[in-house]
Amino acid sequence: MNYSNAFIPTLREVPSDAVIASHRLMFRAGLLRKLANGLFTYLPMGLRAYRKVEQIVREEMNAAGALEIKPSVVVPAELWKESGRWDSMGESMLRVKNRLDNDFVVSPTAEEAFTATVRDELSSYRQLPLTLYQINTKFRDEIRPRYGVMRGREFTMKDAYSWHANDASLDDTYQAMGQAYRRIFKRCGLSVIPVKADSGAMGGSGSEEFMVESDVGDNTLILCKKCDYAANVEKAACALDSHFRPSIEIAKGAAANTPPYEKIDTPNVKTIDELCAFLKTEPKSFIKTLIYKAVNVELDLSSAPGCEKLERTKPSADAPEVYPIAFFAVAIRGDLDVNEVKLASILKASEVTLASDADVERLTGAPVGFAGPVGLTALPLIIDSTVAGMDDAVTGALAKDLHYKHVAWGRDFEAWMIEDIRTVKAGDICPVCGGELYTKMGNELGHIFKLGYKYTKSMNVTYLDENGKSQTPTMGCYGIGVDRTLASVIEEHHDEAGIIWPVSIAPYHVIIVPIKYDGEAKTAADKLADELTKNGIEVLLDDRNERPGVKFNDADLLGIPFRVVIGDKGLAASPAQVEIKRRSEKENRNVDLDKAVAEITGKIIEELITLSRKER
Amino acid sequence: MNYSNAFIPTLREVPSDAVIASHRLMFRAGLLRKLANGLFTYLPMGLRAYRKVEQIVREEMNAAGALEIKPSVVVPAELWKESGRWDSMGESMLRVKNRLDNDFVVSPTAEEAFTATVRDELSSYRQLPLTLYQINTKFRDEIRPRYGVMRGREFTMKDAYSWHANDASLDDTYQAMGQAYRRIFKRCGLSVIPVKADSGAMGGSGSEEFMVESDVGDNTLILCKKCDYAANVEKAACALDSHFRPSIEIAKGAAANTPPYEKIDTPNVKTIDELCAFLKTEPKSFIKTLIYKAVNVELDLSSAPGCEKLERTKPSADAPEVYPIAFFAVAIRGDLDVNEVKLASILKASEVTLASDADVERLTGAPVGFAGPVGLTALPLIIDSTVAGMDDAVTGALAKDLHYKHVAWGRDFEAWMIEDIRTVKAGDICPVCGGELYTKMGNELGHIFKLGYKYTKSMNVTYLDENGKSQTPTMGCYGIGVDRTLASVIEEHHDEAGIIWPVSIAPYHVIIVPIKYDGEAKTAADKLADELTKNGIEVLLDDRNERPGVKFNDADLLGIPFRVVIGDKGLAASPAQVEIKRRSEKENRNVDLDKAVAEITGKIIEELITLSRKER
Repeated sequence: MNYSNAFIPTLREVPSDAVIASHRLMFRAGLLRKLANGLFTYLPMGLRAYRKVEQIVREEMNAAGALEIKPSVVVPAELWKESGRWDSMGESMLRVKNRLDNDFVVSPTAEEAFTATVRDELSSYRQLPLTLYQINTKFRDEIRPRYGVMRGREFTMKDAYSWHANDASLDDTYQAMGQAYRRIFKRCGLSVIPVKADSGAMGGSGSEEFMVESDVGDNTLILCKKCDYAANVEKAACALDSHFRPSIEIAKGAAANTPPYEKIDTPNVKTIDELCAFLKTEPKSFIKTLIYKAVNVELDLSSAPGCEKLERTKPSADAPEVYPIAFFAVAIRGDLDVNEVKLASILKASEVTLASDADVERLTGAPVGFAGPVGLTALPLIIDSTVAGMDDAVTGALAKDLHYKHVAWGRDFEAWMIEDIRTVKAGDICPVCGGELYTKMGNELGHIFKLGYKYTKSMNVTYLDENGKSQTPTMGCYGIGVDRTLASVIEEHHDEAGIIWPVSIAPYHVIIVPIKYDGEAKTAADKLADELTKNGIEVLLDDRNERPGVKFNDADLLGIPFRVVIGDKGLAASPAQVEIKRRSEKENRNVDLDKAVAEITGKIIEELITLSRKER
Repeated sequence: MNYSNAFIPTLREVPSDAVIASHRLMFRAGLLRKLANGLFTYLPMGLRAYRKVEQIVREEMNAAGALEIKPSVVVPAELWKESGRWDSMGESMLRVKNRLDNDFVVSPTAEEAFTATVRDELSSYRQLPLTLYQINTKFRDEIRPRYGVMRGREFTMKDAYSWHANDASLDDTYQAMGQAYRRIFKRCGLSVIPVKADSGAMGGSGSEEFMVESDVGDNTLILCKKCDYAANVEKAACALDSHFRPSIEIAKGAAANTPPYEKIDTPNVKTIDELCAFLKTEPKSFIKTLIYKAVNVELDLSSAPGCEKLERTKPSADAPEVYPIAFFAVAIRGDLDVNEVKLASILKASEVTLASDADVERLTGAPVGFAGPVGLTALPLIIDSTVAGMDDAVTGALAKDLHYKHVAWGRDFEAWMIEDIRTVKAGDICPVCGGELYTKMGNELGHIFKLGYKYTKSMNVTYLDENGKSQTPTMGCYGIGVDRTLASVIEEHHDEAGIIWPVSIAPYHVIIVPIKYDGEAKTAADKLADELTKNGIEVLLDDRNERPGVKFNDADLLGIPFRVVIGDKGLAASPAQVEIKRRSEKENRNVDLDKAVAEITGKIIEELITLSRKER
């Protein structure tokens, strides 16, 4: 392809909202243009790279036994009403009415469409397991689309769904998908961090996110310096505190030397910091007690303190019984924060929030700032495991301007539940290997997830098992954002001058730059382009009448992996020579013109093979 | 691919609305399922065939120098407001409001998105000509979606757009696209009828439709038995009537022997049929005079009879001046029909309809059924060229129950315009070669069209020419319906038993059917599949535990071009044999097992080459 025919509108200036490298470079290198906020047009150079990501995803899905299908992008609302998500998806789902006043959805995801398709065809266990996928347009009406295609409104997702007769079969496919994802990202030249969303102490492994490091990432990741432990901070665990007492008996023993707890006057002292200053001690010595309000609690509270009068209701016919509202006291060591995602998960609640000041006063008998575990009976007390090792702590005393000191768990108070509810932070200890944990910001590129029966039950999918009995299949889902993956390749592979494409994703493998595109240089350039093309190498030939500096700068900006410069001087040498430079390296080398084709072809093929080599 | 892993849910029953072969067979052979009216899911077998059509289109577009890009499917309404089509597109365009109450369009076509993208990048004449295309999702909210993907609501279109500095350049690309379209359809195994939409007597060639014959086609085509003349009936011309008199002088001469016209009483006679019975003659002897009401007439009527008082207005600031409403008398030979598309085109009117009874009475002084050209002065008279050769005709006499006989054009009345306004029909004479014309029903698969300046002017696209002067480029557009092309392949290639895929579109090239998939037959089948696959041949291996009859029927239904049957008897022969059958042929042949791979590979490659061979 000749440069002048390739429609590559490079830019010096970039949109002011392009704050990350991939957004800037996709605009500067002429890969992308904006149609509206969060809506883009891929230009030819961008689409070539995009199609390579798509094709890698397709090849690895096929290799993993998944079959590609293509449902419509616009789907009838009826399907979303069946699954219940017509009501629960919120405003990010784009809803449309057509001329007949029927409701439709511009698909944000496709569990419903796939499940409906399979429902009508599934009859026998012999058809299972079944994994189907699409690579198709999606729409999510982001309130704040930004960072270019990293968070657009319209995007392309590879979404796969699988159906299984049992959990073992689901796990097989789940593992195969996890392997396929690792290969996909490796072939794209990406360093991903696989994050088990409910890993470590939380048990199980029904969900894994594939993250890339990003300063503007949506997720905080907790990583171990020694092992490959990686978790989203929302779910991350850490090793138990060394003070942890596994039982009340041991705790009582440990507290034997602690003086009995006693009241201390703390006038006008409300925060932990003020208390530290007042008592000349550290936050680690305090037990912080917070009152939480939880909504739609599914956990059984029939024997929980203070919950005797709570009654369960059913929010809807199909839903399980829940307590619409319940309050809980949560105690944690003074230097730590409560992880509300963990708390909600433990309570099986749809939402947890700090209680209002009035609720706190009503339930603790004291204003905010003086709650404590000793003598607290009006509501259930949940303590973080760190508290189950504290045998000489300061706590609120359930009265204004009063605290207790010398408080010991097991001796002075008991808990309704002991759980891991802390937010893990840098410096905590790895739950797997005992190494030190640190944090990174990350963006999610892919997610594999064991869905279970959510859709197959609500949408009434059944098959006949080996005994002719009707059964409901279990289900998995597996997504990858194609646009975001492409942008992440640029995030990981660029420098000041431009993009540095891996050969697997590069729009072209080689850019040939004749110093002047005429005479012998033109003949040599055309011949080289022709021979490389015959070898299956994708060549961009800079046929423009521009200064060499302009051509070199554009070649660097476009990020084509190999640059071949053809000048009269090299051609005049004996034997004739050209200059080859890898975009990723600083040095260039002179190579005999008649060996250039073989050398470049060999290097590109070698690199493609390396990227796609199966890991042991 | 093993059959049992391929998710091919074949059906015996098909939906009752599946009235055409492709719709029936796409459901029966497990290519397609319905999500809602006009919305479908391509299943794996369907998508494999679909992707082949898509890839053929892509290859031919690239070969013609077009560059692929990808705008979003959902685009901002602002673009459609700029072009004016937000108001003119009507209800088939799916409009959406997002959560911020902004208007969007689910693209039915993409002139606006492409033009907006090019507008921002185009600066110099050196960038022209430029041809961009996409293969992307479209939506048109059809009132009556039917015939499966032949007329769905959501569909995939290849749409290309080109920009040019001058008409010659536009014509070059237009011709290249026409050639690419011919190659695309040939490679798909389709017999298309290229129809110049304003061909023959109408002059010019700024639009060409690529039609396939279809009983349920939307278009009536007029074709010549002798030459390749083909036209949409809306625009079709035919040779002038042999009686045609090129001038009034000649007409007067021809009428010299006709008696003077005279009144005849025709009590209770209103229709041409009644009049024929009454006068014992044929419709060809009558001049039928119809009164038309035309809306927004752009044609200059300042010197037209009866139009002295008409005033022009501007419907909108940018629009040309028009007469909001005007009436015309249209005379045509009694056995012919007026073509209202031609009439509207001549008048440059947005719409023409028959006038109301009241308007007819007001303008002709007689009730409906008695209009005629003689003495008609209240409105302009347009006569079809057939009337300009009638020298002894019967006409209405502008009074109830009265007609004239012996009426001659030129002698007894003159016309404001003589035009071709007849609807051509089977048996008419070809305007090109004089052969006999016949009709077919057809479906449009593709359309190439010289757009001119419609979008570049309304959306303000400019570039600097060689003299640094700002210019507006001219534009072409070129569409192909991918789904419709795929369905048309099945329409043209099927029989009672199922589909008969051309090798270029077949989801798999070969189906291997072991009579029993175990023992030696399994070993031979696996080896054959393996070796064919290594040659790049796509193989479906029927590994199911079904009776041979079931497998053969499914192979016929699926339409895989080559079937290889492996049985114990053939394997026991010396040398071992398999049976090869082409889906398109009745006979099968025994072939040595060790020669089967070479033979099948050779035939498939030969056929792919034949289909893609360039025509001279």
